[in-house]
Amino acid sequence: MSLFLPEVKELLDEKDFDSLLALLQELSPVDIVELIESLPESSQITIFNLLPLETACDVFEHMEPQDAVSFLKLLSEPKAVEILNEMAPDERADLFASLPEEEAQHFLKLMETEEAQDVEELITYPPDTAGGIMTTEFAWIPVNLTVAKAIDFLRTEEHDFDFYQVYVLQEKKLLGTVSIRELIVSPSNTLVEEMMQNIPTVPTDMDQEEVARLIAKHDLTSIPVVNEREELRGIITVDDVVDVIEDESTEDMQMFGGSAPLARNYVDTSAFGVAKSRFPWLVLLLLASFVSGFVIQKFSTALQAMINLAIFIPVLLNCSGNAGMQAASVVIRGLATGEIKFTHILGVIKKEFLIGILMGIGLGVLVALRSLPVEQSLSFGFVVGISMTAGVVIATTVGTLLPIIFQKLGFDPALMSGPLLTTFMDITSLLIYFSIAVRMLGI
Amino acid sequence: MSLFLPEVKELLDEKDFDSLLALLQELSPVDIVELIESLPESSQITIFNLLPLETACDVFEHMEPQDAVSFLKLLSEPKAVEILNEMAPDERADLFASLPEEEAQHFLKLMETEEAQDVEELITYPPDTAGGIMTTEFAWIPVNLTVAKAIDFLRTEEHDFDFYQVYVLQEKKLLGTVSIRELIVSPSNTLVEEMMQNIPTVPTDMDQEEVARLIAKHDLTSIPVVNEREELRGIITVDDVVDVIEDESTEDMQMFGGSAPLARNYVDTSAFGVAKSRFPWLVLLLLASFVSGFVIQKFSTALQAMINLAIFIPVLLNCSGNAGMQAASVVIRGLATGEIKFTHILGVIKKEFLIGILMGIGLGVLVALRSLPVEQSLSFGFVVGISMTAGVVIATTVGTLLPIIFQKLGFDPALMSGPLLTTFMDITSLLIYFSIAVRMLGI
Repeated sequence: MSLFLPEVKELLDEKDFDSLLALLQELSPVDIVELIESLPESSQITIFNLLPLETACDVFEHMEPQDAVSFLKLLSEPKAVEILNEMAPDERADLFASLPEEEAQHFLKLMETEEAQDVEELITYPPDTAGGIMTTEFAWIPVNLTVAKAIDFLRTEEHDFDFYQVYVLQEKKLLGTVSIRELIVSPSNTLVEEMMQNIPTVPTDMDQEEVARLIAKHDLTSIPVVNEREELRGIITVDDVVDVIEDESTEDMQMFGGSAPLARNYVDTSAFGVAKSRFPWLVLLLLASFVSGFVIQKFSTALQAMINLAIFIPVLLNCSGNAGMQAASVVIRGLATGEIKFTHILGVIKKEFLIGILMGIGLGVLVALRSLPVEQSLSFGFVVGISMTAGVVIATTVGTLLPIIFQKLGFDPALMSGPLLTTFMDITSLLIYFSIAVRMLGI
Repeated sequence: MSLFLPEVKELLDEKDFDSLLALLQELSPVDIVELIESLPESSQITIFNLLPLETACDVFEHMEPQDAVSFLKLLSEPKAVEILNEMAPDERADLFASLPEEEAQHFLKLMETEEAQDVEELITYPPDTAGGIMTTEFAWIPVNLTVAKAIDFLRTEEHDFDFYQVYVLQEKKLLGTVSIRELIVSPSNTLVEEMMQNIPTVPTDMDQEEVARLIAKHDLTSIPVVNEREELRGIITVDDVVDVIEDESTEDMQMFGGSAPLARNYVDTSAFGVAKSRFPWLVLLLLASFVSGFVIQKFSTALQAMINLAIFIPVLLNCSGNAGMQAASVVIRGLATGEIKFTHILGVIKKEFLIGILMGIGLGVLVALRSLPVEQSLSFGFVVGISMTAGVVIATTVGTLLPIIFQKLGFDPALMSGPLLTTFMDITSLLIYFSIAVRMLGI
């Protein structure tokens, strides 16, 4: 809820639009979005129509695409078209991707030709690729200019957006880049060609996570996106990458926690909607855990003969699940940040196997000691201890291997969720435990 | 391992330093760091001494602080001091924070006074605050200049770093900001004062996660850091924030997976080191899971009387743990990204409680149906079903509440790890299950 709500409501009631506008101009676009969302529809439009065009566009760009779509319907058609013409190309394309086909076509016809073509190009790229997150607003100069001519060129071209890197093009081909700061501090008759630098580029179809990793690794402020003919099609700036990284981390965490990622924000999704996204996973895991039940059923005579075996069921299952979760969370994050690369993989598997053995032996000894007062039998202690060691080693290894295999197969490694792992380890640990018990204790 | 290693090794063997330098100049600083790290010490120094000073600094800035500390020892003292004088202030302060006290003092005496003072100011800020991650390199102009004078001022000041925003100061006080692009496109006699804009600032002691959230929320490229007298002390750029967000997500994921975050990179930590960071948690959880064992021990007569109760132990424990993990992962991420704010909390708790009831009833019915062929008793089915419903509702609620409580108490919400939750739910579910069974089934 916006802090300014009471004041704004008062000004709306008094119809004091001058003071209202003055207040709005103090606020950031995000604050205005929050404010608008907590007002009734009629006041939303009053507020929005007060805003200067540039601010109105900023506000629109900061709405979630679905919210922008509903809000667009409230605006008069000329106002809507004016805003669509002026919006940042990447945010505009996201908005069009959420518009119903018919409405999208309708607006495209009303928009200026150049802007409409821009939308039509951008929406052809899948939303999670470099093309899908890039903007087509970038500052460029032709090659063969001096610094003075380059500055003149930038001044006469209508660049109504902030920029920092200037891209040097020959026809549409990207030759290099200069920073605007270098243009300012260099002697006016220097040739731009002599100053320009190479920077990495990405193809339009590169996955957005890979783009994010590249920008983060090299501490770039932006990266140019080129097509197969090396023509500059757009740029991706580091602030877009921040959103990608945040969203991917949220998705990974939700998947690792065993839910399907939500289509909308958690806060905006109803309890029923959230339950619908989580329930299928739980049912699947429930069915899998019935297998654990079958294992116990199969060994129920043995269990009946030595009821103390039951005491260690939750201990063994819990501990192997935990060890697996530890390994999986580290490997999933390592793969997501790129810290763990495919060249490392054998090393990581060996390392986790060793970790599993070290921890498995430690935990095996502890649980064996705990079992002595229960059954006063060394062989019972041995059964419990060795089951623990085996369970922990297997859990650590499986927790390491499965995310890697998922990644190799082209799935998200975080699909290897904690719940999936614990369910798998329940079955495995029970099988190990009862098989060893039956053999060693002769029951 | 670097792709260029074989070629570099060959050139080193042939002592063809010209070709080697040419090759190095094609590489990014990160690539050179990777290359250096895969070479023996003597070759590392040869490579490093070939690099021009600016590149050498870039390379140093991209090393992990601990690696830079060891590498510094390999350099000749004059070379080391030269690099320390030239490095980016924020990276340099991180390096000094990792240097042993004696060495730090030694280098500070040899460095230029201004740079040494800069280090001494920056290392006073805790590393996870705005002061700890800011850089003191920023472009500024005094107030009361025209655009033409401002550009002249920027040109004569020695700004050997890239910048984009220019900060307008009166004495040291921050009045506003203009972008370098606006300076270029505005008429030369405009007063900067008339163009400058307000942007949000952060205090030096703001937590880095909060800074990251602010920059991400408002899509800023940088944010100025001010002291209590509104004096500009430094700036934080969005690329530093990318590292903060990545690191925090990694820490959250590792904690949620039930390990203490590693002090160093996973890849650089030995198997023994990783095991040492994980083992204490597992032992703690093992001790807690012994409580589950006690619960079963206490009810072993009942279990003996109806061995089929054992079949549903792993099913109930697994399912409640999973439901809790789902809720906890969503809430932990929501708190980390700021999507869930304290004003939402009651709503979130109510929502998760409702989700728990919806899913709990569904799962309860499923497991009751599954129990019918096992014991052919409606009351047995009722015991299993109601235990499932209760377990899922409690797990969802606890998974929601505990991260919030942790945050309120000033801990990291991700401390509420999956393993902690599943262990807690094991105990709770067993208590519920056996208590109901004993009462309802008269055993």
